[in-house]
Formats: sequence, C-alpha cells, structure tokens
Amino acid sequence: MDFLKPRYTPMNRRRRIYEGKAKVLYEGPEPGTLIQHFKDDATAFNAKKHEVIDGKGVLNNRISEFVFQNLNDIGVPTHFIRRLNMREQLIREVEIIPLEVVVRNVAAGSLAQKLGIEEGTQLPRSIIEFYYKNDALNDPMVSEEHVTAFGWASPQEIDDIMALAIRVNDFLSGLFLGVGIRLVDFKMECGRLWENDTVRIVVADEISPDSCRLWDIKSNDKLDKDRFRRDMGGLVEAYSEVARRLGILPEQETPNGRGPVLVTSKD
Amino acid sequence: MDFLKPRYTPMNRRRRIYEGKAKVLYEGPEPGTLIQHFKDDATAFNAKKHEVIDGKGVLNNRISEFVFQNLNDIGVPTHFIRRLNMREQLIREVEIIPLEVVVRNVAAGSLAQKLGIEEGTQLPRSIIEFYYKNDALNDPMVSEEHVTAFGWASPQEIDDIMALAIRVNDFLSGLFLGVGIRLVDFKMECGRLWENDTVRIVVADEISPDSCRLWDIKSNDKLDKDRFRRDMGGLVEAYSEVARRLGILPEQETPNGRGPVLVTSKD
Repeated sequence: MDFLKPRYTPMNRRRRIYEGKAKVLYEGPEPGTLIQHFKDDATAFNAKKHEVIDGKGVLNNRISEFVFQNLNDIGVPTHFIRRLNMREQLIREVEIIPLEVVVRNVAAGSLAQKLGIEEGTQLPRSIIEFYYKNDALNDPMVSEEHVTAFGWASPQEIDDIMALAIRVNDFLSGLFLGVGIRLVDFKMECGRLWENDTVRIVVADEISPDSCRLWDIKSNDKLDKDRFRRDMGGLVEAYSEVARRLGILPEQETPNGRGPVLVTSKD
Repeated sequence: MDFLKPRYTPMNRRRRIYEGKAKVLYEGPEPGTLIQHFKDDATAFNAKKHEVIDGKGVLNNRISEFVFQNLNDIGVPTHFIRRLNMREQLIREVEIIPLEVVVRNVAAGSLAQKLGIEEGTQLPRSIIEFYYKNDALNDPMVSEEHVTAFGWASPQEIDDIMALAIRVNDFLSGLFLGVGIRLVDFKMECGRLWENDTVRIVVADEISPDSCRLWDIKSNDKLDKDRFRRDMGGLVEAYSEVARRLGILPEQETPNGRGPVLVTSKD
C-alpha cells in the first residue's frame, strides 16, 4: 500500500488534469490516482453566478472526506482514498459517467417548479433523476432511454448507479437525521473504476453542502448552497454548522471573518 | 354487436364529456363508448398559438381512423371502434393515462434543441420519452421514476406502454416508408380499458399529422404540424398529401379553398 503515503510533487510541478467550477484534479502520486483540490469558488445557474467564498473549499474537503470515508466503511464503493491536507484529497482515477444523479426525498428546486409541487412537500417515495453533464446545454434532465440510446451508460450500469444512489441516500438520510438535518435532495456522480480486467461503478466527485439540500429539521433553515443561489448570505457559517454537527469541527469553534478555523493537527 | 350501429342522439342533445384543444368527446350511444369529434383548431406551444384551419379535422379523423383500424387489425389494442361521419368516430371509453408518449427515430424539435443534435440526425436507436400531460406546467418531460413515484402509471403499465409504443412505431415506420415518408417521431396516448374485471392498456387519442413528424423521403418537405408551428403554410395541402399517399383520398383530388373534398359514400 505504498501509494497511500503522500509522495506528490510540489503544487507548481504537478500536472493539472482537469479544472472544474469548484475543484481541480491533478495527477496523483501513483498511476491510477489523482489529487482532488477544493477551490473556494461558488457557482450557480451554470456559472452565470460566481463568487469566491473564503473557506468553502476547506469545509467541503472535510465534509466530503467524512461522507466518502463512511461510505467506504459501510461497503459503498467510492473513488476516495484519503484526505491529504486542508484542500486536497487522494482519489482513485475513474472514468466519469457524464450524468448528474439526483436523489430527491422532498420537493425543492427544479422539481417543485417543474411539477408544480410546493417546496417542502415530502415526495411519495425517493425519486432518482439523471441530468446530462453538459454546460453548453445547461445540464438537461434526461431519462434512462436517452442514457442508453446515446451510450452514456449501459442498462446494467444504470441499475448499478441506481442501487448505489439508494444506498447513499439511505446512509445520508440517517446521518443527517441524527444531527437534526433533513436531507431534501442531493447530487452525486459515478465513475467506472478499472481493477485488473474488471470494471465497476463507484461513487465519485464530492458530496458536500454544495451538492445537497440540507434543512434544519426544527427551523427549516437552509444549510446548503441554496444560501448562495438565493442570495441569503451566511454560506460559510451554514457549512460550518453542518461540519460541527457531524463532529468534524469542535463544538465551541465559530467561524471568523476569514472563514472557519479547522483543526489541522493531522496535516 | 348492437352498439356498433349509429344510435347517437343529435349533436345538440349530446352530453359533452371533455373539450380539448383539437377534439371534443361526447357521451357515446352505449355505456362504455364515447364519440370523438375532430375540430379544425390548430394549436401549438401550449395553445399560445391558435388558428382554425378549414378541413384539418376532417383529414385527421380519416387518417387517424386509417391508422387505428390497421393497428386493431394487426393486434395492437386501441380505443377505436369505427368512424361515424366526416368529423367523428366511435371509441371505447378509457381512463386516459396522463402521459404523452413520444417515440423518436430522428432528432427534431425539443430533443434536437435540448441535446444539441442537428435536426434530421438519425438517432442511434428509437427513443421513448414521457411528458406529463399538464397544460399549466407546459407538459414537462418526466422519467419513469416520476411516473411511478406519483402513481401516474405502475411499473407494469410502463412496460405495457413501452411495448405498445414500439409496436406502433414499427407499424407506422413501415406504413409511411411504403408511401415515401420518413417517420421522424410521433406522440401517442394510452388509456386503461376495463373489460369485466380485467384492465388492459390500449392506444387512445389520435395518430395524425398533428401528432407525428412526417418528412417526405426525397425532398425532406414537412408533411405535419410543424408547417403550422413554423408558419410555413400549406398545412391542409400537406395533410391531404399524406391522406392521398395512404390511399384515403383519391389520387386526382386536390383540396380547394374550403379544404379537401373527401369521398364520403360510406357516410
């Protein structure tokens, strides 16, 4: 397990593989690994809205680490290997399936609007949706028919993705319920991981308040990126609150003007 | 088979069950039957665009009769019993499933736009789409997940609908190919038909140039409602051409200013 030790070259020497709206992927220290770097950039509405929010990347790196490590531990396969530092984690290189997989438990956002359901209405059951990852087309919603016809994933892969999505939803619903948060919906991505001659679908990308709708169970306060989308302010404070409830930030700590102070003894 | 004989009351005495954008449904002569009346109204973009086009209803009644009678004959169950007169047909009463079922063979319209595919591109395979029939919501596209979660149709019913859609697509593709027309896509609706204690899914509504995209194979001329949607004119002429090629209108006949003259010897 030699590759689990940090041996990556200094940041300015690393080859950048891909830069997204909120993250950068660098070449990893071993073949088949990458370094996932969390930026402070917040974007919404297909990047029409953009801001840099001090501390967001650090929080998402920590929260996503927490979620993915626990998913690994309960046997839900993910790309996550381990966190490297404040903003970076070591991940397995996968072939990203070009779908945003959305699981909804409560009507909100585009579903509430599209089907005329009042935001906050419990859905009859959890609903899985697919969106084709394509900024130029505004990530359109697609159905399984489109996914298979255009070869973005095979029927078997769709089954695997949906099974993973249900497991992640079950775990996250329980996790957040335990800390007084309602999991309204979340987005995940999947990738194909090759190991020797076999390929399997694993959860990839990140799971954080950037990609979930999280409402405080008592107050219905939004603890997620809708604070940014809807100009409500207090985004870092909300993400810090999520991290604190999950036990990632110590109870007594409060974010200062430059974002939260994280315990970094392991870095 | 007594109910197959026309015994309906005069139009002004009949109870109107439902009025849609292009059709009216009246109470039928026997329980479990309805009369489907084809109007001349043409609408598009959720009725934002509206016109009355002399003769369209008569043509659609004939073309839809032809399609549904032939579907019945090859064992694809439909609501159609028989045509009554120029504008009306006798149908079985069904519980309409609130979905527009779209089958696409070639990229056009909303799919071409949504996925950035050039109109006219052959799709890798036929694609079935579902749209939730709701004018107030602009008939949004939905996936099987929405259909089952909201109880619009059961998983078994979706399977039945998709099997019917494929059979209808096979038949229509062949039918139109035989008369020099490319079936780009079409919309159909389905309903639940109760017979004694059993229920089965049948094809309902209409299938006509109002609900299909039909392109002349040689010239790519549009012979369908896109002529109206895109202000191209010549709609009745195009629908007449489809009817003529299908052998419903005699070869030599040409539509006059008041719409086509149809052979009505059986009326």
